[in-house]
Amino acid sequence: MGADSLNHSEVLLRLAETLAARRDADPASSYVAKLFAKAPDAALKKVGEETAEFIMACKDAETGVHADAVAGVDGRRRVVGEAADVWFHMLVAMSRYDLTGADVIAELARREGLSGIDEKAARPK
Amino acid sequence: MGADSLNHSEVLLRLAETLAARRDADPASSYVAKLFAKAPDAALKKVGEETAEFIMACKDAETGVHADAVAGVDGRRRVVGEAADVWFHMLVAMSRYDLTGADVIAELARREGLSGIDEKAARPK
Amino acid sequence: MGADSLNHSEVLLRLAETLAARRDADPASSYVAKLFAKAPDAALKKVGEETAEFIMACKDAETGVHADAVAGVDGRRRVVGEAADVWFHMLVAMSRYDLTGADVIAELARREGLSGIDEKAARPK
Amino acid sequence: MGADSLNHSEVLLRLAETLAARRDADPASSYVAKLFAKAPDAALKKVGEETAEFIMACKDAETGVHADAVAGVDGRRRVVGEAADVWFHMLVAMSRYDLTGADVIAELARREGLSGIDEKAARPK
Repeated sequence: MGADSLNHSEVLLRLAETLAARRDADPASSYVAKLFAKAPDAALKKVGEETAEFIMACKDAETGVHADAVAGVDGRRRVVGEAADVWFHMLVAMSRYDLTGADVIAELARREGLSGIDEKAARPK
Repeated sequence: MGADSLNHSEVLLRLAETLAARRDADPASSYVAKLFAKAPDAALKKVGEETAEFIMACKDAETGVHADAVAGVDGRRRVVGEAADVWFHMLVAMSRYDLTGADVIAELARREGLSGIDEKAARPK
Repeated sequence: MGADSLNHSEVLLRLAETLAARRDADPASSYVAKLFAKAPDAALKKVGEETAEFIMACKDAETGVHADAVAGVDGRRRVVGEAADVWFHMLVAMSRYDLTGADVIAELARREGLSGIDEKAARPK
Repeated sequence: MGADSLNHSEVLLRLAETLAARRDADPASSYVAKLFAKAPDAALKKVGEETAEFIMACKDAETGVHADAVAGVDGRRRVVGEAADVWFHMLVAMSRYDLTGADVIAELARREGLSGIDEKAARPK
């Protein structure tokens, strides 16, 4: 697992740090800084838009029709891209309340009764 | 990092396995099996509903008003809970196309230029 | 035009009256009274869900695939049904602020530069 | 009722005619023509975005907070504006299937058991 497990946590951590750094930056300095300047509405409006696109990408993956697809991007690839758009804008919105992707995944673990894994892994041997 | 990094990847992996196992199960056997039986629409309809709830939870966290809050659940806690609901139902929809949360996080990494981390970690020592 | 024009305004007016009457009713007395009891979140959550269903119904009308269709209900019929669900729950949410479908249509008219029609029709002869 | 009833039906009829006229127009000629050129996805993506904005406008009307409000636009006015945005983009999407706002309102009437009004009004005197 090594590389992959580092990867997921690292990515969520780095992403959280990047977002936090852009929170108080000049709105003109980046797309994310601009979203924060009109927080939380600007990010949440994008969440609504990207959710609609995710739903459409799934329907297109289903039927093999790609009404709006960029040439060369297949249906599954587009589903992943739209999902990343949804998660990203949700993380921007959550950053405002000092919440990160790690908090969401911890909650999913708790619900799936996977918290035991945690505790065992954390237990000194 | 140990326990936490194991955790995020483990959770996403276990969740993917659990969802895959429920894909062909008797619709009466679980909530997820029922969602799969009416795939992808049943899961995507929930994505729409939970996105609306996430947006409302953020607005309430913002104002300190908790119109619909369960007593004792504070605003930030509710944001995490609604985010987990959105991600969970998106993962159910994506499972149908053999896509997992790891694919979404890999895409976020790629966009943030974090793929280098991956490669270094994966490099044999 | 007679019957039809009576119809649209009558429907919006009657709907507004019906919703207003249910606003303070016992939550156990009807579906709408229950939505009002948890206002505005309960109605807005349904708006999110029904919007997702409207989007899916349009995609299905497009491809001729009806993943979730009730036998005998064709694609266009389903688009209208989901649109009515979205509008209905929006009207429930708006009723709380004493707003009706007539307000929305007046705004659409204003934007389309159709307000002139109004004034001419309203002008005493 | 005169003026008002003319108004609602007239507006929906004019809007349907305007949308139909723009369906096959040069995409560069107007905003709506551009939406049609990428139909149905472009309009449906806007439906998702505007629904999120409608939800936020309702939450703000509720709390009296107007995070994103243009100065001088009060909360109820913003709810109507966002509702008009949602309905407009839904009408654009529906226009592709030759459906109009009149179809949606007829469906709402049918559900509310108001179709009797119609028949009586339509009855020759």
